[in-house]
Amino acid sequence: MAGRIKVLIWNENYHETHNDYVRKVYPEGIHGQLKKKLEGEKDFSVSTATLDDVPDHGLTQEVLDGTDVLIWWGHVKHEDVADEAVERVHKRILSGMGLICLHSAHFSKIFRRLMGTRCMLRWREDSNHERLWVVEPYHPIARGLGAYFEIPSTEMYGEHFDIPKPDDIVFISWFAGGEVFRSGITYTRGRGKIFYFRPGHEANPVYYNDDCITVIKNAVRWARFDGNTSTLEGTGQVKPLENIKIKTPKEAEMDHPDWSGY
Amino acid sequence: MAGRIKVLIWNENYHETHNDYVRKVYPEGIHGQLKKKLEGEKDFSVSTATLDDVPDHGLTQEVLDGTDVLIWWGHVKHEDVADEAVERVHKRILSGMGLICLHSAHFSKIFRRLMGTRCMLRWREDSNHERLWVVEPYHPIARGLGAYFEIPSTEMYGEHFDIPKPDDIVFISWFAGGEVFRSGITYTRGRGKIFYFRPGHEANPVYYNDDCITVIKNAVRWARFDGNTSTLEGTGQVKPLENIKIKTPKEAEMDHPDWSGY
Amino acid sequence: MAGRIKVLIWNENYHETHNDYVRKVYPEGIHGQLKKKLEGEKDFSVSTATLDDVPDHGLTQEVLDGTDVLIWWGHVKHEDVADEAVERVHKRILSGMGLICLHSAHFSKIFRRLMGTRCMLRWREDSNHERLWVVEPYHPIARGLGAYFEIPSTEMYGEHFDIPKPDDIVFISWFAGGEVFRSGITYTRGRGKIFYFRPGHEANPVYYNDDCITVIKNAVRWARFDGNTSTLEGTGQVKPLENIKIKTPKEAEMDHPDWSGY
Amino acid sequence: MAGRIKVLIWNENYHETHNDYVRKVYPEGIHGQLKKKLEGEKDFSVSTATLDDVPDHGLTQEVLDGTDVLIWWGHVKHEDVADEAVERVHKRILSGMGLICLHSAHFSKIFRRLMGTRCMLRWREDSNHERLWVVEPYHPIARGLGAYFEIPSTEMYGEHFDIPKPDDIVFISWFAGGEVFRSGITYTRGRGKIFYFRPGHEANPVYYNDDCITVIKNAVRWARFDGNTSTLEGTGQVKPLENIKIKTPKEAEMDHPDWSGY
Repeated sequence: MAGRIKVLIWNENYHETHNDYVRKVYPEGIHGQLKKKLEGEKDFSVSTATLDDVPDHGLTQEVLDGTDVLIWWGHVKHEDVADEAVERVHKRILSGMGLICLHSAHFSKIFRRLMGTRCMLRWREDSNHERLWVVEPYHPIARGLGAYFEIPSTEMYGEHFDIPKPDDIVFISWFAGGEVFRSGITYTRGRGKIFYFRPGHEANPVYYNDDCITVIKNAVRWARFDGNTSTLEGTGQVKPLENIKIKTPKEAEMDHPDWSGY
Repeated sequence: MAGRIKVLIWNENYHETHNDYVRKVYPEGIHGQLKKKLEGEKDFSVSTATLDDVPDHGLTQEVLDGTDVLIWWGHVKHEDVADEAVERVHKRILSGMGLICLHSAHFSKIFRRLMGTRCMLRWREDSNHERLWVVEPYHPIARGLGAYFEIPSTEMYGEHFDIPKPDDIVFISWFAGGEVFRSGITYTRGRGKIFYFRPGHEANPVYYNDDCITVIKNAVRWARFDGNTSTLEGTGQVKPLENIKIKTPKEAEMDHPDWSGY
Repeated sequence: MAGRIKVLIWNENYHETHNDYVRKVYPEGIHGQLKKKLEGEKDFSVSTATLDDVPDHGLTQEVLDGTDVLIWWGHVKHEDVADEAVERVHKRILSGMGLICLHSAHFSKIFRRLMGTRCMLRWREDSNHERLWVVEPYHPIARGLGAYFEIPSTEMYGEHFDIPKPDDIVFISWFAGGEVFRSGITYTRGRGKIFYFRPGHEANPVYYNDDCITVIKNAVRWARFDGNTSTLEGTGQVKPLENIKIKTPKEAEMDHPDWSGY
Repeated sequence: MAGRIKVLIWNENYHETHNDYVRKVYPEGIHGQLKKKLEGEKDFSVSTATLDDVPDHGLTQEVLDGTDVLIWWGHVKHEDVADEAVERVHKRILSGMGLICLHSAHFSKIFRRLMGTRCMLRWREDSNHERLWVVEPYHPIARGLGAYFEIPSTEMYGEHFDIPKPDDIVFISWFAGGEVFRSGITYTRGRGKIFYFRPGHEANPVYYNDDCITVIKNAVRWARFDGNTSTLEGTGQVKPLENIKIKTPKEAEMDHPDWSGY
């Protein structure tokens, strides 16, 4: 666990470069805004990549091998991400890279591949009110927040969200228009720890919201792999345990001559 | 829930047609043996299909639409299953067809697609002893069994099994050579209910074992979709709930003129 | 699984006998209203009991032994339920009686005992609007409902609900006043299947609502034990499996003289 | 998260003071042995308490308030632990103290209260071989171990283990005599993080085993509360969110005059 957490923020970066309104909201791109918010953390080392980066949208094997936690934002260009890059990201996650999917990344190739479901949901672009309720107080991703936090102007995502049963449901959202949503959910796949976080429409300044940034920072720390690296050893055809003898109670006693009276 | 459960048993059917020893164990193929065991159930309607069936390995849209629960056995020919067929099966599962994956089907395209992980495991072909312990007594798939059941001569599958966290772990196996395995596990994906059951090597007569057959019958009944068909309605862009007014306590009381003193 | 499901509806029956307003809403008591709604089901056999019944609030061993699924409603008299009765109900649940806890039964002795947590929540008696969203379409308790259903006038229960992580979260509620709630949740304890269902304030006519009744009927069928009755056999000190020999690959082959070339 | 983790090791300390054989295995008591193994960790601050401590078995409110993680070992004196002390420990766990229950603590009052089940299991004192397989490689409690680890001479605990479905199953044990067991399992209750770890019979020198000590150290770090402290605020009767207005699409656009063409 020594060393900083190497965070890579990947962004489609399309709206910001093609729409004047979004450019005003995120003049340095969503990736740039997130970088600005995260890079002050002493235990983080933050870099970025975007769809247009060459080669491989900035997702080369070397870059991925040097990444502890990947943050992903995408929306209208999911299909433009090369299958080979997705394959590489997938393998790296299974080997222990954390993944944080933000907002419309629920429809990204990588998230759908990890989930095995359609990942569909209801939605409405109406810039209304969202309240995110903490439902798992013990979870480190909920640290430093109130019993709920609010985003005054945001897109709506509503159930049914077509996903596998999450390991943890950290946040459930309430929307003014009558919907609810599992907005902060975790999964594990192989060694990889995955967090999906709902907020973040490109046309709402959500990544300026301090609570949302707190969640993302917490999630980075949670998603960094900190587990067992040996389970793959010896996978495949294996030898049996040899010379296992089952002791009789009599024999077990012989091992413990002082057990008398025990 | 009226009507019989339409069960389709799909088998790769390669070992049985290419190896004399396996042909002796399963002269009618693994699918034929399973059909024989299941077709006596009054609430089942059983059919079969194999890799060589044309078109589409017997997995046409029409066949799948008429299937409630698909049982899948495959081993060395996973890659020969056409991607289009896998895509069709995947969609049908998400729409409510149950799936039972047997033994080496842990490596089938459809299972890996639903899981999003490598689905690797340890293994040893040594025809040794397996004990399957019931760990979820409340689960209908464990009905009619003892506290454990045994297969005297079987291939070994051992942890780590690289799968997502199961919804239920119905059985955990003990192997004489020193291994354990999550041998009966359930998942849900969309409307689909999925059961993976470990036993079943082609060279061991496992599908003659009454306990294994009991499990498969129980699993068929469990895997038949029996849930909600409306969650996909209205998916996509939706309107807000209109005219929601939040009553004050005073107004709420007006609704209930007799509440006085309540 | 032969025979009708024996359902026992237990009700505190205090508000209905002490408050004029509630008496108008439920002239035959909440238990009477639920009985009326359930007894038309051909596969149900329905009876009732209340706090004032003697002996033991109607919860004798004989009654419990003859009960498949117990429905529980209580609110202000939880502490008046004798500990011995709770102990008896608890044991019977672990042995395979289903339990459905309604509304304020979240604070009943039996529910808190099964959960091991405080079971606290936020609340507001304001007769406002609730929407219950289906989040697990595959679950039989959600059968026959829309993507959501509504209760126009109800008490609010809000997160954080201090409960263990549920096995299933079938419904999540939206409340007009800004709250969400895990309103339909399942647990298993021993052989017992447990469902908590939120709606049901005594001063709102919730148990006349067809969708709520559909949920309760579905839950009765789901909660009836249908699993394994053998796991308790042999509990305690046990003998080892004897004479397990691990075959070498050579010996395994001897079992299968026809394996040559396999 | 500043400051050392305050660990309290609680031990029944009966066998060690009443049986010559056990005294030889654990001359300073199980608590003393564990303290010796844990106190070298720079981020731990370790103290101990035993059943005979006065007052309250060393489990006063002041002591508990100063404890981050409580380790519990008990076997034949569970019933001698005062109910008031158990109540106090229970409340403290729900408020955020971690709990690690070792071996026969599966039958302690505190564990059974948290679980709500019988917590029964099979067992055999035969000092045979145990292998603990890692089944959740991503879990921090499995860090630093092999794909499995072994205890050459130990008591057996076998399924069915009558517990609620765990949040995580980190380890599954294999026993030479034919049994399996969910040996490393986690739960959450309120803010409390709970880990049950199977190894540790008083007559086998298990707490000298480096792998077991690694697990306990990992578990201490995992069990320290690191979550949200606000969910209890405002519990009880709450006010609705006021002045929520749902914007029409037209009004939403007014908020964003630059959205034209968006």
